[in-house]
Amino acid sequence: MSVRPTWIAVDWGTTHLRAWAMDGAKVLAKASSESGMAALDRDGFEPALLDLLAPWDVGDHINVVACGMVGARQGWAEAPYAAVPCTPLGAGFTQAPVRDPRLSVHIVPGVKQDRPADVMRGEETQIAGFLSQRKDFDGVLCLPGTHTKWVHVSAEEIVSFQTAMTGEIFGLLTDRSVLRHSVAGEGWDDAAFADAVTDSMSRPEALAARLFGLRAEGLLNDLAAQTARARLSGLLIGAELAAARPYWLGREVALIGAPALTALYRAALSAQGVAAVRHDGGEMTRAGLIAAHAKLKETAQ
Amino acid sequence: MSVRPTWIAVDWGTTHLRAWAMDGAKVLAKASSESGMAALDRDGFEPALLDLLAPWDVGDHINVVACGMVGARQGWAEAPYAAVPCTPLGAGFTQAPVRDPRLSVHIVPGVKQDRPADVMRGEETQIAGFLSQRKDFDGVLCLPGTHTKWVHVSAEEIVSFQTAMTGEIFGLLTDRSVLRHSVAGEGWDDAAFADAVTDSMSRPEALAARLFGLRAEGLLNDLAAQTARARLSGLLIGAELAAARPYWLGREVALIGAPALTALYRAALSAQGVAAVRHDGGEMTRAGLIAAHAKLKETAQ
Repeated sequence: MSVRPTWIAVDWGTTHLRAWAMDGAKVLAKASSESGMAALDRDGFEPALLDLLAPWDVGDHINVVACGMVGARQGWAEAPYAAVPCTPLGAGFTQAPVRDPRLSVHIVPGVKQDRPADVMRGEETQIAGFLSQRKDFDGVLCLPGTHTKWVHVSAEEIVSFQTAMTGEIFGLLTDRSVLRHSVAGEGWDDAAFADAVTDSMSRPEALAARLFGLRAEGLLNDLAAQTARARLSGLLIGAELAAARPYWLGREVALIGAPALTALYRAALSAQGVAAVRHDGGEMTRAGLIAAHAKLKETAQ
Repeated sequence: MSVRPTWIAVDWGTTHLRAWAMDGAKVLAKASSESGMAALDRDGFEPALLDLLAPWDVGDHINVVACGMVGARQGWAEAPYAAVPCTPLGAGFTQAPVRDPRLSVHIVPGVKQDRPADVMRGEETQIAGFLSQRKDFDGVLCLPGTHTKWVHVSAEEIVSFQTAMTGEIFGLLTDRSVLRHSVAGEGWDDAAFADAVTDSMSRPEALAARLFGLRAEGLLNDLAAQTARARLSGLLIGAELAAARPYWLGREVALIGAPALTALYRAALSAQGVAAVRHDGGEMTRAGLIAAHAKLKETAQ
């Protein structure tokens, strides 16, 4: 029995491509591949998408709504940024050039902030998804990931935001720095994480001096790898919370992202007296693409 | 005319091997190769050294004095750490196992600190070299590099020290993070460096939020690569200075390292009202190996 979507939702990041065959807000089927933006030339996007859609019956014509790095300068077509304050899908869609006459590909705009300079691409769709379920939300969204975003939202608009490279720095330190010797292995240490968050928040200026201590404690005191890794994570997340204090202090906070990661942020925020609610990043992306599709239909009418 | 050293000085780091043919304190010849510790199995050290010494006439027997990662756990032979407070060559030499009867290889000890846990291996030799010229020094040595050391020295002893991974993190961010797009290229911007140091020192807790701004300013405002790179360096060195404030504040400071790097640290410290004197790292290593050789002869008598 063939899948006959009425439109296609696509989440196209740096290292992944995910597509959903949709009928209105209903998911009929899904597919994914490793053909992320970073792996493709400009001419490679359409074939990569067609490969993924091949099992589905798209009829004579179908709308594709795509978010993420597919809209970056190195992506399929550069989508503009809406400038804050703005609604998360505020800048209109960008049409990607296609050869196959059955396809219309609409890329979701990013969001930018002039001062301090900042950009997002992909998270705006998760924010739109969240707001489609919580129109009245007035508070802060934290979207942890490679580049964690802290986003002040009010009256259905993004007011301001701030990016921390915490995830990328954690990855570089654990995979490629001298600390890789100290943090290799499985397991986790909740208490070490919590202590490191507190420690880092109370003296964030000492971070530069604390990281190498993980290596030294490994050499001198056989510090367990799971403790070292949890402490490294806590030091970095603590430093991020210190930098983001104006965002979360005294505000309602919701977390959007991968469950393992939002759990860490919730624990760290909880120690600061902030009760953050967690939302799955994948679900918010799909909800945001559904909101984007609804907006596309509105615009077309 | 053949080179006939009376002893051999060796600086053997993670990625390099340098040897000097010595007569007392006089350098007769030098040689170097890429056979760093990281490139060698335990059995590979002696052949790598013999290759380098081949052009020299070492006679029936020669003492080799070596410092650096050659004494690490993954090195030729693990040399112990002296615990602070101690003189920089305080733990005695470790003999490396050799097959060639002409060689006696003496590895310089490292230095450790229990609380906060910290270690050094290689820098103790530079400190010994510095102290051989400045016995009366009472102040702080800063040795910038992959892992920068801040060292409190008094009465010819290392009192305490602190390591910052600034150089390694700068390298990872410029070569492997998303910032690589923003900092690629030649050139430098002194004013951007100075501003970033000041900025980072005055609000070190904001570091996590500032790094991604370099990327965003590149995308939105075409920030020049030389400005972005200088600003990145300034943000990290500023954060390090904030963490090392108890070391440099109100103390005499001397810098030991590569000239381009000590120049940056001198500029950053100068903006804090600290006039630091610079010393070449290579010269201090040789002076330290000469001091170590003198100590070896003393011990042997």
